[in-house]
Amino acid sequence: MPVKFADRMSTVHRSFIREILKVTEDTSIISFAGGLPNPELFPVADLEAAAVGVFQDSGPQSLQYSTTEGYLPLREYIAARYKEKKGIDVSPDEILITSGSQQCLDLLGKVLLNAGDKVIIERPGYLGAIQSFSMFQADFITVDLEADGPNLAELEAALNQDKVKMFYAVTNFQNPSGLTYSAEKRAGVAKLMKGRDTLFIEDDPYGELRFRGESHPPVVRGYLDEGGILLGSFSKVAAPGFRLGWMVCGGEMRDKLIIAKQASDLHTSTFAQRVMHRYLTDNVLDDHIEKIKERYGKQRDVMVESIKKYFPAEVKITEPEGGMFLWATLPESLSAMDFFDEAIKNKVAFVPGRPFYVDDSGENTLRLNFSNSDEERIVEGIKRLGAGLKDFIARA
Amino acid sequence: MPVKFADRMSTVHRSFIREILKVTEDTSIISFAGGLPNPELFPVADLEAAAVGVFQDSGPQSLQYSTTEGYLPLREYIAARYKEKKGIDVSPDEILITSGSQQCLDLLGKVLLNAGDKVIIERPGYLGAIQSFSMFQADFITVDLEADGPNLAELEAALNQDKVKMFYAVTNFQNPSGLTYSAEKRAGVAKLMKGRDTLFIEDDPYGELRFRGESHPPVVRGYLDEGGILLGSFSKVAAPGFRLGWMVCGGEMRDKLIIAKQASDLHTSTFAQRVMHRYLTDNVLDDHIEKIKERYGKQRDVMVESIKKYFPAEVKITEPEGGMFLWATLPESLSAMDFFDEAIKNKVAFVPGRPFYVDDSGENTLRLNFSNSDEERIVEGIKRLGAGLKDFIARA
Repeated sequence: MPVKFADRMSTVHRSFIREILKVTEDTSIISFAGGLPNPELFPVADLEAAAVGVFQDSGPQSLQYSTTEGYLPLREYIAARYKEKKGIDVSPDEILITSGSQQCLDLLGKVLLNAGDKVIIERPGYLGAIQSFSMFQADFITVDLEADGPNLAELEAALNQDKVKMFYAVTNFQNPSGLTYSAEKRAGVAKLMKGRDTLFIEDDPYGELRFRGESHPPVVRGYLDEGGILLGSFSKVAAPGFRLGWMVCGGEMRDKLIIAKQASDLHTSTFAQRVMHRYLTDNVLDDHIEKIKERYGKQRDVMVESIKKYFPAEVKITEPEGGMFLWATLPESLSAMDFFDEAIKNKVAFVPGRPFYVDDSGENTLRLNFSNSDEERIVEGIKRLGAGLKDFIARA
Repeated sequence: MPVKFADRMSTVHRSFIREILKVTEDTSIISFAGGLPNPELFPVADLEAAAVGVFQDSGPQSLQYSTTEGYLPLREYIAARYKEKKGIDVSPDEILITSGSQQCLDLLGKVLLNAGDKVIIERPGYLGAIQSFSMFQADFITVDLEADGPNLAELEAALNQDKVKMFYAVTNFQNPSGLTYSAEKRAGVAKLMKGRDTLFIEDDPYGELRFRGESHPPVVRGYLDEGGILLGSFSKVAAPGFRLGWMVCGGEMRDKLIIAKQASDLHTSTFAQRVMHRYLTDNVLDDHIEKIKERYGKQRDVMVESIKKYFPAEVKITEPEGGMFLWATLPESLSAMDFFDEAIKNKVAFVPGRPFYVDDSGENTLRLNFSNSDEERIVEGIKRLGAGLKDFIARA
C-alpha cells in the first residue's frame, strides 16, 4: 500500500524556478533567470585564510557539536554591525544563527502557524517565503507592492482580518521586484503594525547592496519598537555556500524558535560560523561589499540602458537602486510564460513572474537578474530578449 | 497583544538534556552526560588539507548556492560505501544530503505527519526523534527495546493500530540504550513491516563504530526490500561540526522530501559537502574509524569494568558492542532524577533516562556516555557514581 503523505504536502510543489534553472544549465543560454550572486566576487582567498586559521587555532572545537543559538562572537559581530550601519540596538542574545535565512522562514512557520492561519505577503512576493509558509498551510493575503512600498490601505484592510499571524516583507530591493520601501512607507507600516498581535517579519538579504540613493533603517527597531523580527544573511555580502543567516528577536519568541531550531537541525555548522567570524574580523567587510556594489551597479546600469535601447516601449521596468533583480511588466494581455518558451529558443532565459503570485495573476510579468552576468552578456541577452519581445507583441 | 504560537509548540519543550549540558560546562565535573564524539579524534589536519584543496580547485563553485539533493560525488561515495560495507544496493539518485541526520527527522515529520498521526518508537527512544516528531504533533506508540531488539509481539500490536505512519528505529548501539538489533530481530521486523503502509525509518549514526561482535546489514534493503528509509551521518565517523547527514529513499517520497528540504534551508552547505567529499577521497575513512573504535572500545571496557567494580550489584547495565553509550537501570523504586542532583554535588554527571520515555516511565534509568572522557576520568567518575549509588540505595 502506498504511504499517505501529510496534508501539507498537497499545497506545495516543486519550485517552478528550480525547473527553469535546470533548463539554463546549458551554457549557451544567457540566463537572467537565476538568483545567484556573482561567484567571481566571492572572497575565496580570504575565506581560505580564515578557514586555515580556524583549523589551526580551534580545530577540534570548530568541528564539534555546538549551541543551538549560534557562535557568540559571530552574534556579537552582527549586533555591532547593526549599531554601526543602521543605528539600531540589537543584543547578541537576541540573535539566532540559522542555516541560511531560508531557515528563518521555516522556523517562523513552525512556531507560529496553524493550518489556515493568515499571512500577509507582498504582491509579487518572495517565492521562498511562499514555499516555507505553504508547508504550514498558511492562507495568504497579498498586498500590492507599489514603487515605494506596500499599498497602505490594502495593508490596513488585510491587518483587520481575523487570525493574521504575520506580515512578511522584503523592504530593500525585493526579490522579485527590486523595489524598496521609502522612509514614508516604513513609517506608515510601523504605524499600522503597532499594538497588533500580528508579527512584522522583515527580511533583508539585499539591503547592504545599495548602489545609489539613500539607505533607510529597517522598519524593525528603526520605526517599529516592538513586535518585529528582522532576518539577515551572509549569502549576498560574502557567500551563500556556507548557508549562514540569522534572525533578530528576543523574549519568548526566541525561546520557541530555539526549540524549533533544535528539532530541525540541532544547530548551524560550527565550522562555517567560526570561519565566517574569522573572515569578518580579519577583513573589512565594507571593502568587499564596495567591490560587489561597484560590479553589480555597473551591471544593473548596463541592463537598464540596454532595456531602454532594445525593449519595445510597451514593456515597463523597475529601476532598482540596489540588489540583484529588476522586474518587467508586459502589456496586460500577454503571457511571460508563453514568451519564456520563445526566449529559450533564442538562447536567453528569465523567470516568468507568475510563481511570485499566489492568486495566479502576474501572468504578464517577469524577473531579470543582473548580478550573475557580465556586461557583454547582459547587452547581448537583452538585445535578444528585445527582438523577441517585439515579435511577440506584434503577433499578439 | 502577545503573539499566539502555533498549537504544535504546546507539546514541545526545551530539551532537558540541553539544560543538563549547561550544568556540566563546569570543567570540575566529570560528565558522562553529553552525546559528544571525542574531539581529540577529529581528523583536523586531514580536513584542513581537504578544505584548502577545495578552496584552491573549486573555490567559487564551493561557495555558491547548489542543488537541494546534494553534491553528486558525495552521494556517489555514500552509495559505493553501502555496497562495500553493507552489501546493499543504493543509487546515488536515492540519496538526499541533509544538514545533519537530525534534519532527516524534521523532513520526514513534515512530509508524513498530520497532527495525531501515530509514530512507533522504541522504549527508551532517541530524544531528537521525539522532539522532531512532536513538532508535527505525532501520537507516539512505544515498543519495548529488549537486549536484542524490539519486542516483536508489541511491535505487531502497534502496527495493527490505525493511522500508524512510521516505525522509527535506531538499530545499532541505540541512543540512549546502547542496544543493537540481532539478525533474528532484523528479520522479524522486516517480516512485520512488509506490505504495510507504515514506513520503516532506520537511523544508523553509530553502526560503523562496532568494537567487537558481528555486524549486520541494515534492515532497510538488507532484510526489507520495500518501504524503508535509511538515515546516515558523518557526525560520528568524521566530525559533527559540518552538520552532514543523509537519507536513502527513492521515488515519490524522495521528491516530497526534496520539496520539504528546499522550503527548510534550500540545500546543505556546498562547502561542507565538497570538503567532506575531498577528505573521504584523499584519505581512507576506514583507517580513521579504526582509531575511533580502538579508543572508544577501550573507554567502553574501562567503563564496564569500573561499573562492575564500583557500582552496587542491584544496578544493571547494558554492555554495548559499539557506539557511544551504555544504559543503567536502578532498582525500580528509585529515581535517577533524584540521584542526578546528588551526583552533581559529587562532581559527576549523567543523563537521567526519563526524557527518553514519552510515557513518564523510566524513572529508574540513566544514560552514560563513554566516548568523550579519557580512561582515567572514567574510572574516577564511575567510582564517584558507585559510592553515591551505594549511599542512595541504602537510604531508599
